Amino acid sequence: MKIAIFGFGTVGSGVYDVINMNSALIEKRAGKPIEIKYVLDLRDFPGNPVEKVLVHDVDIILNDPEVKIIAEVMGGMKPAYEYTKRALLAGKSVCTSNKELVAAHGAELIEIAKQNKCDYYFEASVGGGIPIIRSLCDALVGDDIVEIKGIVNGTTNYILSRMGEDGLAFDTALKEAQDNGFAERNPAADIEGIDAQRKTAILASLAAGYQVDCDDIPTEGICAVTAADIACAKEFGAKIKLLASIRREDEKVSAMVAPFLVFESCQLYHVNGVFNGILVTGNATGEVMFYGKGAGKLPTAGAVVGDIIEAAKYYGLPSDIIWSPEKAKMADKGSMTGRYYVRINGGSAVKAKEVFGACVENAVKYEENIAFITEKISEADFEAKIKDLDVLSRIRVYD
Amino acid sequence: MKIAIFGFGTVGSGVYDVINMNSALIEKRAGKPIEIKYVLDLRDFPGNPVEKVLVHDVDIILNDPEVKIIAEVMGGMKPAYEYTKRALLAGKSVCTSNKELVAAHGAELIEIAKQNKCDYYFEASVGGGIPIIRSLCDALVGDDIVEIKGIVNGTTNYILSRMGEDGLAFDTALKEAQDNGFAERNPAADIEGIDAQRKTAILASLAAGYQVDCDDIPTEGICAVTAADIACAKEFGAKIKLLASIRREDEKVSAMVAPFLVFESCQLYHVNGVFNGILVTGNATGEVMFYGKGAGKLPTAGAVVGDIIEAAKYYGLPSDIIWSPEKAKMADKGSMTGRYYVRINGGSAVKAKEVFGACVENAVKYEENIAFITEKISEADFEAKIKDLDVLSRIRVYD
Repeated sequence: MKIAIFGFGTVGSGVYDVINMNSALIEKRAGKPIEIKYVLDLRDFPGNPVEKVLVHDVDIILNDPEVKIIAEVMGGMKPAYEYTKRALLAGKSVCTSNKELVAAHGAELIEIAKQNKCDYYFEASVGGGIPIIRSLCDALVGDDIVEIKGIVNGTTNYILSRMGEDGLAFDTALKEAQDNGFAERNPAADIEGIDAQRKTAILASLAAGYQVDCDDIPTEGICAVTAADIACAKEFGAKIKLLASIRREDEKVSAMVAPFLVFESCQLYHVNGVFNGILVTGNATGEVMFYGKGAGKLPTAGAVVGDIIEAAKYYGLPSDIIWSPEKAKMADKGSMTGRYYVRINGGSAVKAKEVFGACVENAVKYEENIAFITEKISEADFEAKIKDLDVLSRIRVYD
Repeated sequence: MKIAIFGFGTVGSGVYDVINMNSALIEKRAGKPIEIKYVLDLRDFPGNPVEKVLVHDVDIILNDPEVKIIAEVMGGMKPAYEYTKRALLAGKSVCTSNKELVAAHGAELIEIAKQNKCDYYFEASVGGGIPIIRSLCDALVGDDIVEIKGIVNGTTNYILSRMGEDGLAFDTALKEAQDNGFAERNPAADIEGIDAQRKTAILASLAAGYQVDCDDIPTEGICAVTAADIACAKEFGAKIKLLASIRREDEKVSAMVAPFLVFESCQLYHVNGVFNGILVTGNATGEVMFYGKGAGKLPTAGAVVGDIIEAAKYYGLPSDIIWSPEKAKMADKGSMTGRYYVRINGGSAVKAKEVFGACVENAVKYEENIAFITEKISEADFEAKIKDLDVLSRIRVYD
């Protein structure tokens, strides 16, 4: 079976390497040899063995009936969206790590694949090498998925871990992450939660079977998390983690990306550094957690290659992923409930007690501030209650 | 699509319940309604709705061409082995939670399924609701699996957790587990490691693609683990866990079930109580961990129902699980290497230092004993070295 790789960047070269490294095993498992016929990239790679299969013109690949499977690992919307559509329309299965494209157009591309008797696979789009997509679609297929809570962005988890373990300031931890290659020079997509939002959209859509748009997912990044909050959280026995939070109730989906206090009794507390961890709760299976490296060349490439093998094995069978383009019914943000961690100026302690009651009595002190954890409350009620308080920070609590 | 359930015990009634509870969702995901036509059990269940579909004679089911899928949740070898073979020969796919049968005859039953264009599924045989089998066979299919280390028995993990957290003696912890329904009245299969051995055989066979027999897996249970060892392990920053340990190197498989010291930096350290955790290392994906309830009515039933849906979706397609009946090449036990925790009478400290060198200097004291951790050493060398020492206990170390 002949395949092509779109994009010879980090993940693309990883796919190339894994296919060569594990070729005997891949042939055995796919039931046929898998051969890279083309690699598409605008650049040249003089001296690299990839030169032999490198092309700059996508039409050569799309018009070649021998090519049955495409690994789209270019990232971004343009031209990945157009190329993917054309590949699927030509009956070629596409395996991707492109979370931006999957989040925005997954349902549509799956539909096109179905109509053209090919498949659209995207295991690598969430959690890198962690088999979360296939587990949701296949293994946990007997379950009604009621909740997903996950650490789906390694960069922010690394930063928060370093702040928590060694008391680094946010900026110092970010710089260290950049120096170690765990954060991009322009870290906005990670630290503002955009990357996590895309992954949350994909997971929420699969859990619901309907489209959950990024725009419908309230998202907060980690820029506002301070050393003070991390220290106070520690006093409460918690760490601060950026979570993808998805819940399904009464046919409605609530989804959110935000920093949360996570207590030691929760497995996610122990997911540190660049690792990802995703807790899935099914109505039969209960809680299952998936843990591993959520990014990186080989883990992500491994997931793409897993998809390629599946695509080869099931080539010609219609896709069975259930993800309708119809929009999921979303819960109103104000109606979502949970506890809140609140840090205020010590001077407003009396006022806080009037508003939030006894829970303020268990406050911890940090310099001139106090921090306390509220009772369970709706987002709307909470926002109303803090209006007259001098709130320095508020972070949701994962219970 | 009509199915039958063999056995209406804990798991069987769970399968019955999950299929009824999630029927709309199951129909959507399987692409067709799934209807329980028969439940086979020797017993009667007067007043239970299952009565309407209850039969005592397996031939009624095996001779009914309408039944395409069987959930075999009887457990044990007899008559499950014979019934499964007959079902597969009749072209009916079989989904099972029966680890004993899978460990002993998995390869043969998969082969019979292939020849009869049906399938043999066994997700529920390891890790209950944790999708470890499908992840090994499908999602991590692009990886060469180099190592699996896992807590695969919830009963022993519960006992060891209670001994570790609250200093309970082994017998007290076992009794508590029995009182809470986490251990059987006859706990031998769990505490002697037999249950873990079967699961290890299944995982090792799938990792290697060849048959790994239970008899080829050196197995130690947890009966010899004492409060003293747990206290000493704690001094070293470790917990004691019963691990399934599988490694592949130079085309050879080493597999073992034994208590291990696990340090805090390892995810398995945080897998406590009745939970299971399985760390899989692939040559591309790196370390991935799966965590969840490894037993229990609904988690196990959820896994069986997931298999039933897959069996319904792919009915008529040949099985693609790679598990040859040919025996895997096993590494010699004596050649396996690792560090050892050793507890000895304080009186033999000088002798121990002669034999094991500087590592004894970091020994911790426990009453009249000392405990130390050796350098990396082969099992054979270790056994030779401790011959003349007054060894009270020795436990492997997971690094």
